[in-house]
Amino acid sequence: MIPGLRLQATCKLNLINGIPQEQLHVADRGLQYGDGVFRTLRASSGKLIWWGDHYAKLAADARALGIACPVEEVLKPECLTVAQGQDCVVKVILTRGAGQRGYALPDPASPTRMVMSSALPDYPAAFVSQGIKVRWCSLKLGRQPRLAGIKHLNRLENVLARAEWSAPDIAEGLLLDEAGWVIGGVMSNFLFIRGKTLFTPDLSQCGVAGVTRERIMRLAQRQGMQVRITQMRPQDVFRADEVCVCNSLMGVLRVSMIDDRPCAEKGWAGKFRDGLNEDD
Amino acid sequence: MIPGLRLQATCKLNLINGIPQEQLHVADRGLQYGDGVFRTLRASSGKLIWWGDHYAKLAADARALGIACPVEEVLKPECLTVAQGQDCVVKVILTRGAGQRGYALPDPASPTRMVMSSALPDYPAAFVSQGIKVRWCSLKLGRQPRLAGIKHLNRLENVLARAEWSAPDIAEGLLLDEAGWVIGGVMSNFLFIRGKTLFTPDLSQCGVAGVTRERIMRLAQRQGMQVRITQMRPQDVFRADEVCVCNSLMGVLRVSMIDDRPCAEKGWAGKFRDGLNEDD
Repeated sequence: MIPGLRLQATCKLNLINGIPQEQLHVADRGLQYGDGVFRTLRASSGKLIWWGDHYAKLAADARALGIACPVEEVLKPECLTVAQGQDCVVKVILTRGAGQRGYALPDPASPTRMVMSSALPDYPAAFVSQGIKVRWCSLKLGRQPRLAGIKHLNRLENVLARAEWSAPDIAEGLLLDEAGWVIGGVMSNFLFIRGKTLFTPDLSQCGVAGVTRERIMRLAQRQGMQVRITQMRPQDVFRADEVCVCNSLMGVLRVSMIDDRPCAEKGWAGKFRDGLNEDD
Repeated sequence: MIPGLRLQATCKLNLINGIPQEQLHVADRGLQYGDGVFRTLRASSGKLIWWGDHYAKLAADARALGIACPVEEVLKPECLTVAQGQDCVVKVILTRGAGQRGYALPDPASPTRMVMSSALPDYPAAFVSQGIKVRWCSLKLGRQPRLAGIKHLNRLENVLARAEWSAPDIAEGLLLDEAGWVIGGVMSNFLFIRGKTLFTPDLSQCGVAGVTRERIMRLAQRQGMQVRITQMRPQDVFRADEVCVCNSLMGVLRVSMIDDRPCAEKGWAGKFRDGLNEDD
């Protein structure tokens, strides 16, 4: 558990296919096989932060699995409804829907969309002012190009990796793939800056290509930085001017320590935070 | 869809934590992350076929993920209840239960057990008398030793592989891993016989180590055969005296063709079928 993190145990409001309910049929392939995709986004006074990017990514991920994505005109109002004008987390799960037993795709398929809100994680102010401590996870991500980059519901690797530590001062774990390349955080994307170049891992074999990482890459390019999506080793990380992790809830946070090794600081995380909402 | 296969669209009877119901809370980690394991077994006139093996495997898989497995005295009566004295499929899903948002394990966790029955697949008699046609899948399984062998709920690779074909005369797809080793069928385990030796793939990197494969290995050893769990290439398969796939619903079936290439026949599938229930 992240220090100071407070969350309520269950969602505040759930819509399943537009209907307020909290229960899903057990024949849904989201449960049976993890056959679906999801999004986690932030609502601020009910406004859906970076909605356009989130919807585009949901649609792309659904297309990659051959699941029909609801049109924006259906999904956005549902997200606004569960956000209820508040500061909260909105999570969208889209599955291939219920089917008969067996892996074969239901034909026709009738996808299930779930939209739910919950309390924002209450990150300590020190995460922004002092950066966060992270650790290397021992679990190595498997490589599967057919699923790489997609935020799908098969997340047991993340669950096992997150279970590796309970120390409250460790805010995130970093993952390598089985070939030893740095891929990202358990719940975040990873990047570092050296000189005027932003480096972020190649996610063609595993990992999730998140919306915040995408926005930071666009921001860096607008600011005239080089952006390199590349394979990287742990030793490359320690030669960086600054190391960051990012996701839609925490934004961009500087990494101050990886296990017992301090990371340099050059003020990049703050610059990215300031610019992240520019092209909203 | 397998030729002649008839299935009803939804389960006949579901118990969730012992209570007849068909709906699961959306906060369940089985849906959110695929954080659970499952079993598919056959009931014959209500008798749970190979129950002891299935329960032992469920318990081992749950232990591998750190999920508390219900005691047999709770689970078996529930399986018998849903089987209702009939010939049917009984599926058991065990998840880590509902939790707050995020990958961190709920503490304490309250696992969810789902027990459900459905119609048996109606395999054509020719599957037994003439063997089945199968194909090589183009999807290559990723390698993840932490999850290998476990029948967990992260099954998107199986879903994508099964979606590769719709020809009704193809009963199963065979999968290689990304290193090119033969692993098994989309919904079955794989084995072949050469001389007096049974060969079946090493599943230490990926794949599901099924109960029927385990029973066939024990049977072969009782009959004085050598059993070799080994890495194998596709070309090794074609040097076999007989190639088979197996699972708890189909039992053991001979493979007569892999794509356009016929496989030899020596009567092994029939011998294994006859012996499979011996030590029940």
